[in-house]
Formats: sequence, structure tokens, C-alpha cells
Amino acid sequence: MKKLINEPDGVVDEMLEGMVAAHDLRRLEETEVVVREDAPVEGKVGIVSGGGSGHEPTHAGYIGDGMLDGAAAGAVFTSPTADQLSEMILACDGGEGVFCVVKNYEGDVMNFETAVEMAGMESDVEVETVVVDDDVAVEDSLYTSGRRGVCGTIFVHKVAGAAAHRGDDLEEVKRLAEKTNDRVGTMGMALTSCVTPEKGEPTFDLGEDEIELGIGIHGEPGTERTDTMSADEITDHLTEAVLEDLDLEAGAEVATIVNGMGGTPLMELYVVNRRLQELLGEAGIETWNARVGDYMTSLDMEGCSITLLELDDELKELLAYPVETPGLTVTGGE
Amino acid sequence: MKKLINEPDGVVDEMLEGMVAAHDLRRLEETEVVVREDAPVEGKVGIVSGGGSGHEPTHAGYIGDGMLDGAAAGAVFTSPTADQLSEMILACDGGEGVFCVVKNYEGDVMNFETAVEMAGMESDVEVETVVVDDDVAVEDSLYTSGRRGVCGTIFVHKVAGAAAHRGDDLEEVKRLAEKTNDRVGTMGMALTSCVTPEKGEPTFDLGEDEIELGIGIHGEPGTERTDTMSADEITDHLTEAVLEDLDLEAGAEVATIVNGMGGTPLMELYVVNRRLQELLGEAGIETWNARVGDYMTSLDMEGCSITLLELDDELKELLAYPVETPGLTVTGGE
Repeated sequence: MKKLINEPDGVVDEMLEGMVAAHDLRRLEETEVVVREDAPVEGKVGIVSGGGSGHEPTHAGYIGDGMLDGAAAGAVFTSPTADQLSEMILACDGGEGVFCVVKNYEGDVMNFETAVEMAGMESDVEVETVVVDDDVAVEDSLYTSGRRGVCGTIFVHKVAGAAAHRGDDLEEVKRLAEKTNDRVGTMGMALTSCVTPEKGEPTFDLGEDEIELGIGIHGEPGTERTDTMSADEITDHLTEAVLEDLDLEAGAEVATIVNGMGGTPLMELYVVNRRLQELLGEAGIETWNARVGDYMTSLDMEGCSITLLELDDELKELLAYPVETPGLTVTGGE
Repeated sequence: MKKLINEPDGVVDEMLEGMVAAHDLRRLEETEVVVREDAPVEGKVGIVSGGGSGHEPTHAGYIGDGMLDGAAAGAVFTSPTADQLSEMILACDGGEGVFCVVKNYEGDVMNFETAVEMAGMESDVEVETVVVDDDVAVEDSLYTSGRRGVCGTIFVHKVAGAAAHRGDDLEEVKRLAEKTNDRVGTMGMALTSCVTPEKGEPTFDLGEDEIELGIGIHGEPGTERTDTMSADEITDHLTEAVLEDLDLEAGAEVATIVNGMGGTPLMELYVVNRRLQELLGEAGIETWNARVGDYMTSLDMEGCSITLLELDDELKELLAYPVETPGLTVTGGE
């Protein structure tokens, strides 16, 4: 399978160079960590995240005033090392502590834990963590105990970043991030497997008349393989799974994301959004804000995921808080 | 080839429904035209565009305060009808005239011409047009006489939209749009062909060890088929072609777009941007702003294009002018 890359083992390094060349980012020397150009920001809780590469714009694409201060990129689908995570934490400490947004994968959780310990040995930085587990498809997977962290992570980035920006302390940032995680659910599906640069071929085989439901974002197969369905049938299936998990009832207000997995045209994502909003309307659930695009990808996989976040005034205020990042921009007034 | 759609002949209609459900857009009844919710905006030149579907977020994704007032969507890779273009022009006339941004394809150019005549029979609206032809790959193609209009159109949208928003009159908007078109060049390539919903299979065949250079955005093959090359070699080739066409010299200042064709992961586009910025640096050309993402796509095609716009103070002011659209947001301060 052809890719727009040079050597597979240089792809993360070269991608980061390309990001730094495009955006207001600074790369920590001899690491795959990027931070705000002006990090650390004094007098503000630092918000950081990280994980394997291949999910772009996640996470470095969400660095900006009002969202993340730093992001660590591991090899493709591989956790960053604890060393680098620790360096990131220290680089983003502006005196008010650092908050880590971690997707629930064993490697990420373990390496962040070690990193927090390492950072604690070098400085008196206070660190708190949220482990995001929004994927409603599976309780345990190849990479996780408990549910996986997927596209709902974007909402956690947004909420935590806005809270820190307006001056909330570490404890309050943590409360809001956990609240967001408690109220968000995601379910994904794939028309095709992704192809990693290293392997150069699909990580699972899927026939021309088959699709996978309940996929993750690391090329792991889904929870169910079915015959090809229409976009509406697929949307029904995904939406139902999330609604059931969140136990949403008529009158609820939500923010939604129809997320592309990396190889899906925007045209198709809008077709899915059409049906999603129709379903929510039928269920008496009001959409406060709808996003459609590539937020949490899996390399070149064709497919999508649907994320719903149940809102209240507190969360709406933080989601509407202005921010400008390569991956998500809010100018206010939403 | 699998797609996230329902019936192929409903895809444009359902996509537009999905867009209207997500963004502040209004669809003109019984058309495939979408406009700003508050169109027409009194006292401002209306800026409109349109063309075949399959290039999303082009064009409707660029509707917003400071960019487009309306966009017409034809069937996939097919010009909108003159009827609908005329309706769009009338719906976006706020008393100061309407400016049409047209990509150089025979169908689009002809239908916009007819639409302007039709609108003129129904009202005294003043209409001016720019025909964008930024593709440096070919002089004539399957669909055009002269060069094709591709990703450089985004810059024309931005410049014309900002000029109209700050109060420039129709003549001045036209001057600035033409100036932008004169200074912009694009060259694209593909790893794979796109697959139209209707046909369901690639519009041209490309071997596993072949790529196409100089492709358009309608599934037409490129100007040259070569063996697979590395991302750097591809970037060298595309950049050289654009630099030569624009005759850029050391000291010039540019805005750049590394544009994904719809099926290309962001990771790979950043790898291309890394090399592009390196090449510009070596040539003594300064990048004022670099964009990386899907701006002018060709359904699910894997590949990219590189666009360079030679800047001056006048164009920089208009590019930096704040705007918020689904496809492009500028908060100022660039």
C-alpha cells in the first residue's frame, strides 16, 4: 500500500517537523514532545496529553491558548516513553500544577504513571490525571482493561484547557475533566482497516461486502463484523449504542462529533451527521453544537465514529470558551 | 468499493442536509444552494461560489462572515445548473452587487455566465466574476480550456470575502480576487484514483508501484505517471513546478497550503509540509502562513497538492482578516 512518506521509521519525526513548521509549536530537544512556543505559562495549570502517533490531529493539533500546553507523540500506535512524558510535564509546569489527559490504554496509563513519579523526583510539581474511557463498544480490548479512550478525549481536552485558561485550579480542572469523561460516549466503525507505515498492509482483512462495528483506533478489529450496510443503518447502530450507554432521555442537550477515521471523505461524514441529527431530534434530544471532521483518526482507515457529550451550563461555558488550535477553533458565540 | 452513503443519487442532497444540521447555513428551497442564515447581508458585496460536489469542504464549508455568502453544489463532479446559480446570486444580493468565484471548468464557466444573464433579467443586480485557474500542471484538460481551478480557489474566497466584509466595492473586490489568482499556483499528485458514488470503482487505474503527477480534482488522470517516489521526491517535484510557474525569487513571501485530496492522513500531509518548508527556506522564500489539511478534495483520492500564493501587504491584511467557517478559521493575529 502506497503512502506519502519517506522511511517508515522516520515518519513521526518528520511529521512533527512538519507540524512545527506550520504552527506555533516548539519541540523539546531530542524528544517527540511539542509544546506551546511560550510554555510554561506562569500562573496557569498546564494541560498535557500524549499517546501513540497515527491519530492526527490528536494530540499535538490541539495545542493552543485555551486547550493543550503540550503533547507527546509515541511511535505509531505506541505509547510515548515515561522519560519523554516526564520532560513534557516539567516543561509545562507554570507553578500551578500540570494536568494529564490520558487515553485508557495500558501502555499510556503505565507510562504516564511512571512519568508523574519521575517528574516528582525532579521538582515539586503537582500532577493530576484523568483517564478517558469513552468507547462504548468494549469493556476490555487488546490494549485496555476497561473501556478504550477515543474521540471523546477531544471534549476532555477542550473542557480542561478552557478551565485552566480562565484560572481554575488543578483540583477544579480535574473535577471538570472527570465530569466530561463521565458524560461522553463514542462508538466507531470501519469500512477498511488502516495500514501502518511499518507493516505496509492492512492490520486486519475485511471483504468488499463486510464492515466492522465497534472498532478501536489502533487497527484492532471491531466487536462485530457484518455485511455492508447503508450510511443510515450504520448511523442508527452507532447512535443507539451511545444513547443506550449514556442513558440519555428526551430533553437532554448534547454536543456531537461525527469523526472521520482518516481516509473518509467529508461528504460521507456529513451524510452520517444528517441521520445522526435526525435520530437525536426524534429522541427529543437537542444538539447544542455539532462537529463533523477528522478529530481522532486511525491513520488511513475509512470509517467514522459518533461521539455524544451530555451538556449542562457549566460544560457549555467551557466548550464555548474561545480557542484557536490547528485541530479545533472556537471564536466564541456558539 | 465501500462508501458511507445511502443511494448514490441521494448523496449530494443528504450531504447538504448534514451540513445545514451542523452549521449556520440555510438551504434555498428545492435547490442544492446553501447560503448564510442571514443572507442577503445589506450594504455588502455578496460573495458566492459553486461547482460540482466531491471537493468538500469546498465550497459550502467556506460560507461564513468574512468569506462566502453562498455556495451551489452540483452533482458529483458536475456543474450546478444556471437556474440554481442564478437563484444563489439573487439570494446573496444585498444591494452592493454580487461577486462570483468560478473554478475554470467549461461547465462551471458556461453556467455561471448564463446565470448572470438570468439574474440580470430578474433584477438590476450588478455581478462580476473571477475565473480561477491556478493549476500549473496543464494548459488544457479534459474539462477546461486553459488551466484548471483547484486549491488556490480557497485563497480567492478568503481575499474576496474579507474585502467585501470590510466594505470594499464590487470593482475593488474583483481587482483583489484577480490579483490573488494571478499570484497563486498549485500542483497535485495522487497515490490512488478517486471512486465516485455513482460508478463505485476507480476512475483510472494505478498500479501498486505507480503514482500520478499533475492530477486534477475530478478523477481525471494526471499529466505524468511515474514509479512510486518518496514523500520528499514528490514534494520536490510539486514545489519546483509551482515555483517555476510563479517565478518566485529569493526574498518573496508566501502563504502555503499542503492540501489533502480526501483520503490522505494528516500525518502524511505534515511530512510533505516539512519538506516544502525546507525547500522554501533553501530558496530564500519566507512562509508567512502555512496551512495543512483537506481544503479542496477529490472524494476519497489519496494524494496531495501544494499551493503557493505570493504575498504583499495588501493580501496579507486580507488573509489575516478574522473569519469563522467550517473549513477555515482565522481569529486574527496571524
